[in-house]
Amino acid sequence: MEVDYTNIKVIGFDADDTLWINETYFRDTEAKFAELLDQYETQNKIDQELFKKEMENLPLFGYGIKGFILSMIETAIELSNERISPKVIQTIIEYGKEMIHKPVELLEEVEETLEYLSKNYRLIVLTKGDLLDQERKLKQSNLEKYFHHVEVMSDKKPKNYSDLLEHLEIDPKHFLMVGNSLKSDVLPVLELGAQAVHIPFHTTWAHEEIQPNKEDKYLHLGSIGELKEYLL
Amino acid sequence: MEVDYTNIKVIGFDADDTLWINETYFRDTEAKFAELLDQYETQNKIDQELFKKEMENLPLFGYGIKGFILSMIETAIELSNERISPKVIQTIIEYGKEMIHKPVELLEEVEETLEYLSKNYRLIVLTKGDLLDQERKLKQSNLEKYFHHVEVMSDKKPKNYSDLLEHLEIDPKHFLMVGNSLKSDVLPVLELGAQAVHIPFHTTWAHEEIQPNKEDKYLHLGSIGELKEYLL
Repeated sequence: MEVDYTNIKVIGFDADDTLWINETYFRDTEAKFAELLDQYETQNKIDQELFKKEMENLPLFGYGIKGFILSMIETAIELSNERISPKVIQTIIEYGKEMIHKPVELLEEVEETLEYLSKNYRLIVLTKGDLLDQERKLKQSNLEKYFHHVEVMSDKKPKNYSDLLEHLEIDPKHFLMVGNSLKSDVLPVLELGAQAVHIPFHTTWAHEEIQPNKEDKYLHLGSIGELKEYLL
Repeated sequence: MEVDYTNIKVIGFDADDTLWINETYFRDTEAKFAELLDQYETQNKIDQELFKKEMENLPLFGYGIKGFILSMIETAIELSNERISPKVIQTIIEYGKEMIHKPVELLEEVEETLEYLSKNYRLIVLTKGDLLDQERKLKQSNLEKYFHHVEVMSDKKPKNYSDLLEHLEIDPKHFLMVGNSLKSDVLPVLELGAQAVHIPFHTTWAHEEIQPNKEDKYLHLGSIGELKEYLL
């Protein structure tokens, strides 16, 4: 696709699965969760019910690990017909705490790319998830120094982006968003007249899966390092 | 106390128990939680153990209802020696969801005071808690229109305030913070050379209780409406 980034002044980066690994930890925990419940149901059914419960709870709990733990607990109670042992529920909570404790693992070429781009652009982070959790990851990542602003957002709908850009006094035509989710990082941004780059992570949460339209104009890259070929 | 607010340009408001009722709902839920467990322990012991668990989990979960639910669940499992029934755990989660659904109840004179002050000052909200939850409450409160900025903070230590004021380009000597917590809203702000007004709510979470020093200079008011007597 032909792209023209001449007007870009501000680049927004998604964090989870764009700057560092995240979804993998959720997948691993889901697998361990399914093992815990394997006397009650198949892994497939457990995955499906957990996902349904997460979607049901999303308007209440929002994104992040704490809501995920609560959805696992509710799923375990329901799938076991209230026969699950309190010990197993405590184990589920421990799985969640382990996720919070995971060290931050940067994706390849992230740091050098941010360093390069920070010379010519204002870089910001736009991420969903638990506030404290995202702040901790950013701090651990040692990437804070490259960013002018970090925003933990409760959602990534067009309205969330337009409110934020207005607040930060960024004209959409000067804004480029980079992220791994078409649904959250690319399409809502295109809708505002800003630009976007899609860099898929090898695994995507079902909630974020979506088919783009042929008319959607955005750049698709294999890794964040390739950004340097398109930007100053 | 003599106060001089001549230099004040920006007023920060805490939200929970300063603009609207919050702590009351936690207290009510704690009482219901103690009833659920009354076969295992006295209300006093249950309160104490829940508080200990909340403090233990605070660095991981941060502030807000989701962390509170998880701490209640862990406390129930421990106090019952893992004999608690899954049904009771589901009830605890329902209590938490009820808290999230509580309608926003403004404290007296809040709206008229904000309307009055918004004519001469830039007003901002600085609050802890779950991101989505605080956004929802602010929206429901219909107070959004009075605020230039809303910040959900992961903590309210001096460093959190100084980072935020710097980011918003507010000189501490132009800043006045208004809130119900000496520990979170008053003392850290005084430490930065900004000013503060303390308006206690009738109930305070044990975590927020603190004794001020005699030298701490801040204004103590009985209700938010009295602010008009001290500010333009």
